[in-house]
Amino acid sequence: MLDVVVMAAGKGTRMKSSRPKVLHRLAGRPLLRHVLDTVASLDTRRVVVVTGHGAEAVEQSPMPPALAAQLAFVRQEPQRGTGDAVRHALPQLAGDGVVLVLNGDVPLIAAPTLRALAAAARPDALALLTVVLDDPTGYGRIVRDASGAVQGIVEQKDASDAQRTIRETYTGVMAVPGARLAGWLARLSDDNAQGEFYLTDLVALAVADGVPVQAVATQDEVEVAGVNSPVQLAELERGFQRRQAHALLEAGVRLADPARFDLRGQLECGPDVEIDIGCIFEGRVSLGEGVRIGAHCVIADASIAAGTVIHPFSHIQGEAAGVQVGADARIGPFARLRPGARLGDEVHIGNFVEVKNSTLAAGAKANHLAYLGDATVGERVNFGAGSITANYDGVNKHRTTIGADASIGSNCVLVAPVVIGERATVAGGSTISREAPADQLTVARARQLSIERWKRPAKKASE
Amino acid sequence: MLDVVVMAAGKGTRMKSSRPKVLHRLAGRPLLRHVLDTVASLDTRRVVVVTGHGAEAVEQSPMPPALAAQLAFVRQEPQRGTGDAVRHALPQLAGDGVVLVLNGDVPLIAAPTLRALAAAARPDALALLTVVLDDPTGYGRIVRDASGAVQGIVEQKDASDAQRTIRETYTGVMAVPGARLAGWLARLSDDNAQGEFYLTDLVALAVADGVPVQAVATQDEVEVAGVNSPVQLAELERGFQRRQAHALLEAGVRLADPARFDLRGQLECGPDVEIDIGCIFEGRVSLGEGVRIGAHCVIADASIAAGTVIHPFSHIQGEAAGVQVGADARIGPFARLRPGARLGDEVHIGNFVEVKNSTLAAGAKANHLAYLGDATVGERVNFGAGSITANYDGVNKHRTTIGADASIGSNCVLVAPVVIGERATVAGGSTISREAPADQLTVARARQLSIERWKRPAKKASE
Amino acid sequence: MLDVVVMAAGKGTRMKSSRPKVLHRLAGRPLLRHVLDTVASLDTRRVVVVTGHGAEAVEQSPMPPALAAQLAFVRQEPQRGTGDAVRHALPQLAGDGVVLVLNGDVPLIAAPTLRALAAAARPDALALLTVVLDDPTGYGRIVRDASGAVQGIVEQKDASDAQRTIRETYTGVMAVPGARLAGWLARLSDDNAQGEFYLTDLVALAVADGVPVQAVATQDEVEVAGVNSPVQLAELERGFQRRQAHALLEAGVRLADPARFDLRGQLECGPDVEIDIGCIFEGRVSLGEGVRIGAHCVIADASIAAGTVIHPFSHIQGEAAGVQVGADARIGPFARLRPGARLGDEVHIGNFVEVKNSTLAAGAKANHLAYLGDATVGERVNFGAGSITANYDGVNKHRTTIGADASIGSNCVLVAPVVIGERATVAGGSTISREAPADQLTVARARQLSIERWKRPAKKASE
Repeated sequence: MLDVVVMAAGKGTRMKSSRPKVLHRLAGRPLLRHVLDTVASLDTRRVVVVTGHGAEAVEQSPMPPALAAQLAFVRQEPQRGTGDAVRHALPQLAGDGVVLVLNGDVPLIAAPTLRALAAAARPDALALLTVVLDDPTGYGRIVRDASGAVQGIVEQKDASDAQRTIRETYTGVMAVPGARLAGWLARLSDDNAQGEFYLTDLVALAVADGVPVQAVATQDEVEVAGVNSPVQLAELERGFQRRQAHALLEAGVRLADPARFDLRGQLECGPDVEIDIGCIFEGRVSLGEGVRIGAHCVIADASIAAGTVIHPFSHIQGEAAGVQVGADARIGPFARLRPGARLGDEVHIGNFVEVKNSTLAAGAKANHLAYLGDATVGERVNFGAGSITANYDGVNKHRTTIGADASIGSNCVLVAPVVIGERATVAGGSTISREAPADQLTVARARQLSIERWKRPAKKASE
Repeated sequence: MLDVVVMAAGKGTRMKSSRPKVLHRLAGRPLLRHVLDTVASLDTRRVVVVTGHGAEAVEQSPMPPALAAQLAFVRQEPQRGTGDAVRHALPQLAGDGVVLVLNGDVPLIAAPTLRALAAAARPDALALLTVVLDDPTGYGRIVRDASGAVQGIVEQKDASDAQRTIRETYTGVMAVPGARLAGWLARLSDDNAQGEFYLTDLVALAVADGVPVQAVATQDEVEVAGVNSPVQLAELERGFQRRQAHALLEAGVRLADPARFDLRGQLECGPDVEIDIGCIFEGRVSLGEGVRIGAHCVIADASIAAGTVIHPFSHIQGEAAGVQVGADARIGPFARLRPGARLGDEVHIGNFVEVKNSTLAAGAKANHLAYLGDATVGERVNFGAGSITANYDGVNKHRTTIGADASIGSNCVLVAPVVIGERATVAGGSTISREAPADQLTVARARQLSIERWKRPAKKASE
Repeated sequence: MLDVVVMAAGKGTRMKSSRPKVLHRLAGRPLLRHVLDTVASLDTRRVVVVTGHGAEAVEQSPMPPALAAQLAFVRQEPQRGTGDAVRHALPQLAGDGVVLVLNGDVPLIAAPTLRALAAAARPDALALLTVVLDDPTGYGRIVRDASGAVQGIVEQKDASDAQRTIRETYTGVMAVPGARLAGWLARLSDDNAQGEFYLTDLVALAVADGVPVQAVATQDEVEVAGVNSPVQLAELERGFQRRQAHALLEAGVRLADPARFDLRGQLECGPDVEIDIGCIFEGRVSLGEGVRIGAHCVIADASIAAGTVIHPFSHIQGEAAGVQVGADARIGPFARLRPGARLGDEVHIGNFVEVKNSTLAAGAKANHLAYLGDATVGERVNFGAGSITANYDGVNKHRTTIGADASIGSNCVLVAPVVIGERATVAGGSTISREAPADQLTVARARQLSIERWKRPAKKASE
């Protein structure tokens, strides 16, 4: 059985933020959530998160649903070291199996590494995750005997010259035999400069007890990188984004510039998807075969079907309701699709057009300067430049329904609730507050007059 | 006489695309087109493109007009190696002069290099293009004798320790005496692991026949870089963009960030042009003296005269018809100029304004939220905020003509075909469907009424 | 007493620009202005700028107000070397104290360095600013004797093999005892290849006169980097931007990508500010606690209060009048705030909305496709989609006043000067040219008619 303790009590003073450190976001997700999402892919029995600074905020942040039944929070107040943190978790642990101790501020730890580490701790060994660094200066070195068995961790200041050449260092992540944990923790001492209880001291206790110490080494610095400052967070963000971009490229997605691509969530792509520079994807986005995304688009929680082209500067934001765009549609430039926009195949949404909570059937078009809110729009409708669905009477939202093949002129106002019949034509400049019958021309327009002896305003002196 | 064979039959499995490899785009142009545009600058007699995977698409892709008279396609099916590919081209070749063999997926090969290579093959030598790599591991090494003459190419697995220290490697590009080619190709064997005919084996045949083998070496890895995967394509795209940016800087163009600049076509700049971050140029763009391009602009097929400022987030897209902007104009932010926009000097196009297939004479202004389509606009016209030329009656497009010094109010609709006379004023909110006479005020506006005992809608319970 | 001479006469041929070199901009400020802003933070008596090429433009460029009383310009025509330049400045100098000689094209020289250099020149020493380069090839080396005292500067071509291993080089910046300066300058010779007078020769004169030569060394290449070409300017711009980004990160600002952040001015941030990719800040900008700036925003001369969110693609440009945004406001995406926009707390400005010289009280909203110019808008006003304040009659600008809790429908035109009363409702599609009374519904709308036997236009053959 595998239990997990995640240390998430730190303040993160260097973050200079009122937000608890583990709630800072990497690629849109809190650091702690990255760790827990990875933990959720393991076969665990119990997951204990040790909180402290900002405990309430941490405990209330959204957790992976898959862990709901096994997740527990314990509060460590005051924070007296990593050993003390795990001691707070003890009452939640069964005292058998393997206990994996993770850091909530090391977000990119990978599941295969954790599985290997947990396996190394069975049936009765202490397993340390180590990393081989190009420059290990300042880190505790892993000292092994001639047979390769780990003898201990030597801190930089205590290391001999020979030991300082060791590039394998401890990452802070370990797996402990559950049956040993309580006993070892009880034997930890806070007789040190900080007056704290260090989990690292378990290594010496294991050696003293004749329990083998295994080291599982990774070459991947990014996987074990912790976040202690905004600089580190920004660096890790870039490292993570580079990885995501590389993985998409390998899958055949064509990115115009992998260094100018940001994915904060999940992106599923069909074959031959092309993504231009400066785009951001958030939440869950799927792009069908041959979809092309123009430069500088922001797309969140949307599903875009095959063959559709999104032109530059488009902002698509589905939130909970989502946005759906059909096949072979043309969106943008400067289009905004908001939650609940459902666009059929071959729909065209042009520049300076906003669509919210509206369904547009196949072939409908709104090409210029328009607002479609709370509307149901039929097939092949042409919604004219500058036209608006007035869906809001100041307190309530109402629905506009436009039948198939209707044509709405320019600068019209459709005052909802209102129905435009099939094949109806609404003349440009009309404000429509009653039904416009099918097949008819409906107009609400004042008579055009010209005033012959009209004098233009003169320039005022003082303005 | 110089003939060229371009190998363009490969599938490019690692591209994970339905598109033939040589049609993938670098800086907006297919890889093969890069090669052929370079070939078009040489003095060639015949250019044979060997197609295979996706042959039809490759053959139908646009080719350099200058090569029209000498271009031939031959299909290699199945693909049985580079030697086999050239063998397919033989019937198109005269059997004399020099035959240059290029790869359609090595897009940045440079004309001077090809000229040097062709020259090295005259009158009777085999000339190889080589590149000196920092890390040649995995590549075939060029082995020379004490005099520097090339003795052969040794593959990595066959190389001695001494040979493995050689950093000069073969690029896959060669120039062959035309009179030798058919004979050598006939002697190639497919008795190897892949069962293919390798062009590289010509080297051994040349040595056997006592024909000198010349090596023309380049230091430039980018020039000889091939594209086999989306990762390589993205890397080469960046390398190419860095070069283009550097060349523009050297010519005096000021780029705010050379790493955030994309040119996919031709950009001509006068003196003192400034280009802010995140801009993309496509097709043919010319920028006059002192033009400033704001951040995050996309500009394609446009000519912008001296002193004009394009503010951020402007999208200019000329396509075949082109866009012309006069001198000292002010465009954007958030402006969209579409095909056929012809703007005179000192024209102002402001935010959320779209112009398509329209001529605006000097000093005309459309500063806010407007659509000008199929319009002819006179000098100094002021086209008000929110106003629209209703150019489309659902089936046909019609023209709007606005005389010089006319003033169009806000939220007007000009229903085309319609004429606004010189110095005419159109009152805000008017829909104009007949001529507005010169010098007069034309208004189409309903009477303003107020309803005293009016009660606002109340909030519905369930919404 | 400290006097400063800044050399700013050079043409900068390699810049390929009609602009004098020292007026080229780094992070939005002329190179010379960077130097003078740094000088303004020292305790100086007199600052002499030696101009030459483009002297008039340089002299008329905006100077730091703090230097107004002590700034003098002298013109060096023709330019006969750095020694000649300082000679032109002599009449402006008192002949005592220390004279600091700076280059107008070395913009990032830091005040602490200059203070150290000036101190090293007291009471009677020549002080040179030096930099230790990884690759000093081509630069004049600083030769010291066994005691570390500077013996001279040896040019690359005159250097022995031993001297070429010296990595300390001269930067062109020195501090000279004022009492020595005139005498030394008089002894300079132009008997050299260029026929110019070199300030560097002061070193030999000091040694000859037994005046100690001090070297103040910096490790910071960026600080002493000069700008001679657009490539160097672009590199230094990036170096400077990286520094600024790093400093903001260290202060707790969270930048999604430090490599895609541009600050051209001053940015003050409260705690927990987040800035997404591709943003540009210009002039003076302040962001309150918890402000979030979305991707691809351009923000200049604006003050944004705590809790406000600026969505992507927003363009805020305060210029002299400034822009103010209150707390917990929501701006964008695609919003434009222009000079004199003053938005209260919780104001919402949505997509394709422009605000200029207008005050919006707390809770006012303009969410879609609108223009508010020269307007005073009361609390909680809802300004409908597509509505426009017609503030310009072709020659004069007029004011629109909208009382608290008024509701303006969609596609309205408010023809200024006009007043909308408190709690007034203006019906959608209305053009309002007279006061709309408080609490009443005001409507200006034509009757809606439908035409039964209407036939749509037919497609013309030839279009």
